[in-house]
Amino acid sequence: MQTWQLPQHIADILPERARQLESVKEQILALFRVHGFELVHPPLMEYSDSLLTHIDEGLSLKTIRVPDQLSGRQLGIRADITPQVARIDAHLLSHNQGINRLCYSGSMLHAKPDGLLATREPYQTGAELYGYAGTAADIELIDLMIKSLKLGGINNAILSLGHLGVFRALAQAANLQENQSRQLLATMQNKDREAVRDLAKSWQLDDIWTNALATLPELYGGRDILQAAKQRLPQLTAVSQAIDVLEQVCHAFPHQAVHIDFAEVRVDNYHTGLLYAAYAPEHHDAVARGGRYDGLGEYFGRSRPATGFSFDLRVFGAYLAASSRPEAVRVALADYAQAIEKINELREQGICVVVDYGMNDNSGSLKRLQKQGDEWILV
Amino acid sequence: MQTWQLPQHIADILPERARQLESVKEQILALFRVHGFELVHPPLMEYSDSLLTHIDEGLSLKTIRVPDQLSGRQLGIRADITPQVARIDAHLLSHNQGINRLCYSGSMLHAKPDGLLATREPYQTGAELYGYAGTAADIELIDLMIKSLKLGGINNAILSLGHLGVFRALAQAANLQENQSRQLLATMQNKDREAVRDLAKSWQLDDIWTNALATLPELYGGRDILQAAKQRLPQLTAVSQAIDVLEQVCHAFPHQAVHIDFAEVRVDNYHTGLLYAAYAPEHHDAVARGGRYDGLGEYFGRSRPATGFSFDLRVFGAYLAASSRPEAVRVALADYAQAIEKINELREQGICVVVDYGMNDNSGSLKRLQKQGDEWILV
Repeated sequence: MQTWQLPQHIADILPERARQLESVKEQILALFRVHGFELVHPPLMEYSDSLLTHIDEGLSLKTIRVPDQLSGRQLGIRADITPQVARIDAHLLSHNQGINRLCYSGSMLHAKPDGLLATREPYQTGAELYGYAGTAADIELIDLMIKSLKLGGINNAILSLGHLGVFRALAQAANLQENQSRQLLATMQNKDREAVRDLAKSWQLDDIWTNALATLPELYGGRDILQAAKQRLPQLTAVSQAIDVLEQVCHAFPHQAVHIDFAEVRVDNYHTGLLYAAYAPEHHDAVARGGRYDGLGEYFGRSRPATGFSFDLRVFGAYLAASSRPEAVRVALADYAQAIEKINELREQGICVVVDYGMNDNSGSLKRLQKQGDEWILV
Repeated sequence: MQTWQLPQHIADILPERARQLESVKEQILALFRVHGFELVHPPLMEYSDSLLTHIDEGLSLKTIRVPDQLSGRQLGIRADITPQVARIDAHLLSHNQGINRLCYSGSMLHAKPDGLLATREPYQTGAELYGYAGTAADIELIDLMIKSLKLGGINNAILSLGHLGVFRALAQAANLQENQSRQLLATMQNKDREAVRDLAKSWQLDDIWTNALATLPELYGGRDILQAAKQRLPQLTAVSQAIDVLEQVCHAFPHQAVHIDFAEVRVDNYHTGLLYAAYAPEHHDAVARGGRYDGLGEYFGRSRPATGFSFDLRVFGAYLAASSRPEAVRVALADYAQAIEKINELREQGICVVVDYGMNDNSGSLKRLQKQGDEWILV
């Protein structure tokens, strides 16, 4: 084992990428700012209960845990930031009864990677809106998600939509138990219509619910699929409401490539309604994910409607040209003190000036500051 | 225990502070950039051996360790970033035989806080220069440290200087063993002249070294103390060289308040020569620390002269006025689609425009976008 070797799924970000990601991050935070989203920095480490590791099994498996030397309680390194922001909305910003728009950008750690190509240290960046249950809030956030991706070099993302309300309404109408629901959700994610049907039959559900549940994995496609869903799914109020929400979202983005999938039922325990994500060419997984998670704040003392999305800034590395090293002006060490006024002036203009110690300085430029008469000029 | 409670010495950064620290961070990274320092983002988590926990005991005690589920080896959450940057210079950037100027800004975690008032999650930001052994490089870094602090609202920092070379030269001349050196260094830090003398006597050192070592805790003060040091310390080459370095640094900052302390001998195992730090009014500890750590990269395959400093961005919270919420313009949801051109225009100018859902939105402004005739205007 070499001393410089890094753990699997862990990587340095070196100058040409770091420069680029930091610049994109600054642009995205500025974008969030002009849309009214306020920055928060929750901590990297909290009591693991506060990170909701006991509520969401997937999250629990990803969370690195250590004993707290000060309290003896169990700490977790965050594997998700949304529960922390929900805590801040519920507890610290609870004086605001209206809408809280919050955003964040920071690292988190996963004990195990999400997949073969996934990092264990996503540079997670996202925005969340608390306090408004209407679909207009989801549309606001989806718009912001698409704009963020454009800053990250992804101009042709496909917007993927789903809605947990459809599955939940069918599960409730069919009187499924909690563990049955969970088993069915996991099966549904594999898009295996026959397996879903077999499962429903093994529980002796009424034909109407067996058929409806087995239909979900077939209901995917473009905007047209909403019409098919209306025809093929039972006319439950909650089903109609979910389709109505999806229609509103499609309507709000008339020129956007959209993919709708009624079997897109993310297996976590905190999303509740509309699900949205963005896919980009040549990326193995969604480049951004979001959705409704109404009521997550209840655990922290205030239940609120909530919608939001996040993405890993590192993903943009593949879509943006690595920014080249900025042009630098060199000044010999012996000249530095005399040329200081000119140097300060250049640096205030954003020009990089480096001291040349005569050490074969790799500063990527042949420009030098030299004296001609009374003036310092670039040669 | 409340669900929203955070561990001791761990805190959220809420909007008014987060906005301010992010803005200072952007300014400091821009400052580093125009001075030729390239940004790197080393990972939060590495094999603990790579984090030098086996070399530096203080660092080891602060490092949170967990087993790696993928390799079974021991991982550490970084408690310091300098060893990571030394790894990058030694291994990843080893094609550059000249000078590497690198900088970073990111969180790290401490298992235990450094003191009663310390955070366990410093937002560590720093700059390092590899490849030049001359004092001019230290002067370059000290200049950058002072400029960074000014951006953080600290205009009247005291520059504190020390030099490990003096103690090391005396220890070598007196033939001290490694463990004796370490014990003496720890005693020295308490500035207890008598304890130092007693220890030296117990080892039966020659009077000349006993006296010289016992003199160090008395050699502190302003620039004048260098003259006193020349007179009172034995005329060893390494001692003269160290005093010469301190004189060069003082000379380079003629208008800067300086404090020199020959007993400032930080107990870590990687600093080697000049030590610099900055103190500010009303802060219990140094607000920035740096120094020479020549040879740290050897562990990663390339020994190089190196000098650098770092500080915790959170410290600036006490020195900068919390930035107030930006002025926001509200636009009613019903008007949003029609006013979109005007809204985009305002946002491009950096003006924050929020959708008003009629929910008692706490957007801190009474300005609204309203239609008058054919135009959207601010009222």
